[in-house]
Amino acid sequence: TKKQPITVAMGDGIGPEIMDATLKILDRAGAMIEPEFIDIGEKLYLEGHSTGIPDDAWESLRRTKVFLKAPITTPQGGGYKSLNVTIRKSLGLYANVRPNISYEQFIKTKHPNMDLVIVRENEEDLYAGIEHQQTPEVVQCLKLITRPGSEKIIRYAFEYARKNNRKKVTCFSKDNIMKLTDGLFHKVFNEIAEEYPDIEKEHWIIDIGIAKIADTPQDFDVVVMPNLYGDIASDVAAQITGSVGLAGSANIGDQCAMFEAIHGSAPDIAGKGIANPSGLINGAIMMLVHIGQPEIAAKIHNAWLKTLEDGIFTGDIAKGGASVGTMEFAEAVMDRL
Amino acid sequence: TKKQPITVAMGDGIGPEIMDATLKILDRAGAMIEPEFIDIGEKLYLEGHSTGIPDDAWESLRRTKVFLKAPITTPQGGGYKSLNVTIRKSLGLYANVRPNISYEQFIKTKHPNMDLVIVRENEEDLYAGIEHQQTPEVVQCLKLITRPGSEKIIRYAFEYARKNNRKKVTCFSKDNIMKLTDGLFHKVFNEIAEEYPDIEKEHWIIDIGIAKIADTPQDFDVVVMPNLYGDIASDVAAQITGSVGLAGSANIGDQCAMFEAIHGSAPDIAGKGIANPSGLINGAIMMLVHIGQPEIAAKIHNAWLKTLEDGIFTGDIAKGGASVGTMEFAEAVMDRL
Ligand SMILES: CC(C)[C@H](C(=O)O)[C@@H](O)C(=O)O
Ligand SMILES: CC(C)[C@H](C(=O)O)[C@@H](O)C(=O)O
Repeated sequence: TKKQPITVAMGDGIGPEIMDATLKILDRAGAMIEPEFIDIGEKLYLEGHSTGIPDDAWESLRRTKVFLKAPITTPQGGGYKSLNVTIRKSLGLYANVRPNISYEQFIKTKHPNMDLVIVRENEEDLYAGIEHQQTPEVVQCLKLITRPGSEKIIRYAFEYARKNNRKKVTCFSKDNIMKLTDGLFHKVFNEIAEEYPDIEKEHWIIDIGIAKIADTPQDFDVVVMPNLYGDIASDVAAQITGSVGLAGSANIGDQCAMFEAIHGSAPDIAGKGIANPSGLINGAIMMLVHIGQPEIAAKIHNAWLKTLEDGIFTGDIAKGGASVGTMEFAEAVMDRL
Repeated sequence: TKKQPITVAMGDGIGPEIMDATLKILDRAGAMIEPEFIDIGEKLYLEGHSTGIPDDAWESLRRTKVFLKAPITTPQGGGYKSLNVTIRKSLGLYANVRPNISYEQFIKTKHPNMDLVIVRENEEDLYAGIEHQQTPEVVQCLKLITRPGSEKIIRYAFEYARKNNRKKVTCFSKDNIMKLTDGLFHKVFNEIAEEYPDIEKEHWIIDIGIAKIADTPQDFDVVVMPNLYGDIASDVAAQITGSVGLAGSANIGDQCAMFEAIHGSAPDIAGKGIANPSGLINGAIMMLVHIGQPEIAAKIHNAWLKTLEDGIFTGDIAKGGASVGTMEFAEAVMDRL
């Protein structure tokens, strides 16, 4: 079989360390990939690219259509546009898929038995970026919801549930207040749910829904919602698993896809070799499934679980107990492949 | 001293039961109030009032300027406007104050030591209710943030902190995406914080902020934010205290104020005499402080705490253990006044 070209960004802060660890594991596991490195992020922002992404990076992304991305630092101040948002829109990555699992056998958590997937709409809503100043004292931002956008993400959620043997899809919206916009999203949810009689459907108003995720996350399975709600719900879900250092995330489009860790570039611990590479490893595992290498994905996932089972933890998980560095952790995963 | 006239709505569902219990406690504690009853809610909606509020109710509200409200049922379907939102806007109730406390000595909770107050902007943001359909497939909702509105709520939060001996005010916003609207809110927060050097200030991006409330609520004190974020954050905070049946809430304006429980009308248990009146009792306690009867407020609060300390619980708290009904609980509070 031929190797699949993928675009790789080493990122800023702890990015290079965790990407290095992840690529070594991918290589040792026999992943059939051909990394192509691009330079994006902090340095580029500071050189004057308002999005942090130069032309040759776009060229690679549009060619390989698969992107493994380490966390990026957006410089403080100035009018820098979010790199993630630019990539999501430019490449049409309409579905942000964020699994959140608590590993209660290995990692202390208030929420055992948690295993849910947030499917977040990734292009519309308040993220459309339409803001204006009406008077010096009055500013506005437009929340945009479309039927095609809603249909696409909701259908994705039900297809995902069916493919991954999940039993229920829950929708969050606030149509008691936003009757037209969130009302449309909820209506489309009800329509599409009809086509999947094998999958249970459920709906919660967003405030109660996110509160329930925070309190009884074990009651959820697949949860689909507009962009901004998904941003909040997925951070809540990740945080209460016990560590934000574990979860990977996929941004899926019809043509392209991007895979990453859900956490940021953590400049405070950069260069120390202590960061947890697990989030990016889990992002890479999602990538392998996406490009049709599920056996290698499963192999890495099992080795990663075995590493945790053997009590080998980076500092963020060990919390004062014995801990290993980024590369030692990766070596331990490789030993268990 | 003269009795303060207050407007009272018995509400729908469990409303009449918990209001009855609350009014008995207020009376027995010697609260200097003169209730004036209005009919609003479900019945009125069904009679054709789109807001559920007839003219004579408005007349009473505008005269007494103090409103103790039981939960209301909004009928399903139809274009009914939220009664709460109508009252907030019509009476200029710009500050929604929601204390969330975990009572770990009495009530099982994953989050001991939790004692935070959400101060939610209550008139602007996506709640301005400006929505329109651009094409049959494209709908929009306007998020509105103004400088005067932001100044008012942020100043309220700092004044509240100072008056209640709280040490820190945290602001949540999403100005990495909404640079004009949430950017304005954050900027005004920084400006006003300068005037309160005695109070610590802090800021989190909304997704991380709400995740932190869900995970480590004990780290927060007073938290101020725009309307919709406050809606979500306050439901999360209430839910993780261990019960949504406990918290009261105040909606404060320059002229008028409304006090209520944070939970809904729970039609499924209506008429059974088993609902927990604690949320409304705590709303009434906030009302007594507001109208200048803090000693009576403290007396009721202490009796209520003593009731919990003595292990006297309604079913929602007892969770299978021995429990009492709504009125027995109220009697127990009265016995301890
Ligand atoms: C960095 C930020 C623009 C981004 C978002 O808001 O989507 C992040 O919070 C995320 O969830 O990926
Ligand atoms: C009932 C609803 C309109 C209301 C809101 O969204 O404000 C409720 O959730 C609340 O928090 O008081």
